[in-house]
Amino acid sequence: MTVVALVGNPREGSRTLTVATRAAHAVALRRNPTDLGAATNGASGRSYEVVDLSALGPHLLAPGAHPGVEVALELVREASVLVVASPTYKGTYTGLLKSFLDRLPPQALAGTAALPLLVMGDAKHALAVEVHLRPLLVELGASVPTPGLAFLEADFPRLEEVVAAWTDRIAPQVRAITALRPAASAAASRSPA
Amino acid sequence: MTVVALVGNPREGSRTLTVATRAAHAVALRRNPTDLGAATNGASGRSYEVVDLSALGPHLLAPGAHPGVEVALELVREASVLVVASPTYKGTYTGLLKSFLDRLPPQALAGTAALPLLVMGDAKHALAVEVHLRPLLVELGASVPTPGLAFLEADFPRLEEVVAAWTDRIAPQVRAITALRPAASAAASRSPA
Amino acid sequence: MTVVALVGNPREGSRTLTVATRAAHAVALRRNPTDLGAATNGASGRSYEVVDLSALGPHLLAPGAHPGVEVALELVREASVLVVASPTYKGTYTGLLKSFLDRLPPQALAGTAALPLLVMGDAKHALAVEVHLRPLLVELGASVPTPGLAFLEADFPRLEEVVAAWTDRIAPQVRAITALRPAASAAASRSPA
Amino acid sequence: MTVVALVGNPREGSRTLTVATRAAHAVALRRNPTDLGAATNGASGRSYEVVDLSALGPHLLAPGAHPGVEVALELVREASVLVVASPTYKGTYTGLLKSFLDRLPPQALAGTAALPLLVMGDAKHALAVEVHLRPLLVELGASVPTPGLAFLEADFPRLEEVVAAWTDRIAPQVRAITALRPAASAAASRSPA
Repeated sequence: MTVVALVGNPREGSRTLTVATRAAHAVALRRNPTDLGAATNGASGRSYEVVDLSALGPHLLAPGAHPGVEVALELVREASVLVVASPTYKGTYTGLLKSFLDRLPPQALAGTAALPLLVMGDAKHALAVEVHLRPLLVELGASVPTPGLAFLEADFPRLEEVVAAWTDRIAPQVRAITALRPAASAAASRSPA
Repeated sequence: MTVVALVGNPREGSRTLTVATRAAHAVALRRNPTDLGAATNGASGRSYEVVDLSALGPHLLAPGAHPGVEVALELVREASVLVVASPTYKGTYTGLLKSFLDRLPPQALAGTAALPLLVMGDAKHALAVEVHLRPLLVELGASVPTPGLAFLEADFPRLEEVVAAWTDRIAPQVRAITALRPAASAAASRSPA
Repeated sequence: MTVVALVGNPREGSRTLTVATRAAHAVALRRNPTDLGAATNGASGRSYEVVDLSALGPHLLAPGAHPGVEVALELVREASVLVVASPTYKGTYTGLLKSFLDRLPPQALAGTAALPLLVMGDAKHALAVEVHLRPLLVELGASVPTPGLAFLEADFPRLEEVVAAWTDRIAPQVRAITALRPAASAAASRSPA
Repeated sequence: MTVVALVGNPREGSRTLTVATRAAHAVALRRNPTDLGAATNGASGRSYEVVDLSALGPHLLAPGAHPGVEVALELVREASVLVVASPTYKGTYTGLLKSFLDRLPPQALAGTAALPLLVMGDAKHALAVEVHLRPLLVELGASVPTPGLAFLEADFPRLEEVVAAWTDRIAPQVRAITALRPAASAAASRSPA
């Protein structure tokens, strides 16, 4: 099971990055016991990967391919669990995040459990998680089995607590959905060689 | 695993009822093999139950309890898989369906896999499944792991085919999520002894 | 210019009723100066009419016509400005309100300026005004020229202030849109007799 | 009255551009008679301006200011009527459009009548106009008095007819709202000099 945090904040070192990586870490800790052998991803030595779009912005809307963007797209497509995180700009996810997701082919997230996460200054935008971000992930073919997280900036001092409460609640469903993945992948690998 | 079709069409014998019961039947057929002993529900001899709101309308918005409504609420709360079906009225689910769901307590569908289904005359309302009906089910605590079904009335002649294609696609995720239920129920039954 | 407050709270004497009537009053006060002659509605002696659905519930989902429901539908259809108010139940407007609106024919609110208003305990449901209630009114043909009001229950002690701030902001657009109405009505009354 | 078409398609010479400019032209033709003196915009000799984002992509997500982007932002902010057009990518507006709008300050479109327009291959995404694009424009402070346009690619051969039908329907409301603008601007120009 590969856990990836996709971070759509244009600023480096953003709070969105912090919340998303803590959420990815918490999800990875609660993975299936049978995945223990894969508890750290080879490449990073971490239990999850991070795709931080803050450095990729100009390349996302430029014509042609860019190596960093290609690597990021590949990581996202290979994720078993994808934490999709953004600050709220104008009441919904950022153009940066959408510009990245627009580059994925149809149904690119089929077989992925996606966890929507918005970091916001005002609770009045909370529903954007379910009415804007989640339908976008469903359109990409992802399974979005659990409620997303609307993280209030005012809760930053108790970040670990909020993230742990959310992760504890959703972990069983995430485990159940991701347990399907190996079978699907195996089936895929048996297809016309 | 109990499969229940909740039908929010005010007319008796509606197309919504037909589509919803075929969907419930198809989902029940693809249930976990380990559930085979429970392949028919005791009460009905069918593999699924139907809660048809067409007969309950006046009682839903009346003060006080009504036996038929109470039975319906209980069936819905006990479902492992709940097909929530409505025609589109004014571009979204009916007031009849919402009036019924309004009677459920908070988080009443926690532990339930809900499958949203709208029957519509015009494809232009298709997104209502994901942006209106699905957030309502999430608010009630349901897990909505799969894309819902926007069923076009023009597809009625090939109902079985459309329903089978949708059910084949979502069955693995439905099975995965519902497999969590027995453990959760067992835990619940161990609580306050 | 007729201002009508439509109140979709099932409880008599609800806070929703209070907020909606204060909003209707404030809108009526800011109507066009040329409407001064019509500053009070004949029937009520008030500057606005109220359609409170709390007494009509059981009849809305019953088959057949009911005199009280018919009067309510007529008042709503004749409004120049319609304040459409509901508490949030399950994160969106009530089934009671939707059951009433479901009885309107297509495009019944063409020529009406509709002002969506939700009364909520938690700011996290604020977007429901724009993503759930407003699209419903647009589907009915209404012009919804202004942002709606998400009224927090915690703001009840400063009700007049919140309502006045909102009404001041939206009054010019409401006046502009409703100024179209007489011309449209005159045109309609000239149509094939 | 200045009419501006904002086009969020990353491809040059897109169908979105064609539909948006025809819509802007049709709206400009139906402007207030009192605006006749301003029937052509000085800069272009046309009755409307076009902001085509296809050439600005890479600059929108790059740090710092870019002259072309600044000019585009200024044109959009000064519009009386803004046609906001995008193809549907992943079931909603493009990341390109959102990245541009993200650069606007809060309430940047206060005083602007915005007309949402999505060009789509499949009618199933039609509601995105009302549930995704419109709330974004409202969040920016725009008045969105009319239903938006969900333009189906299959209707391209009868583009003029579809655009004319929509524009005829919405023109009175657009005129009413934009008539407010001079007063508001005059008030603004009287403010602390």
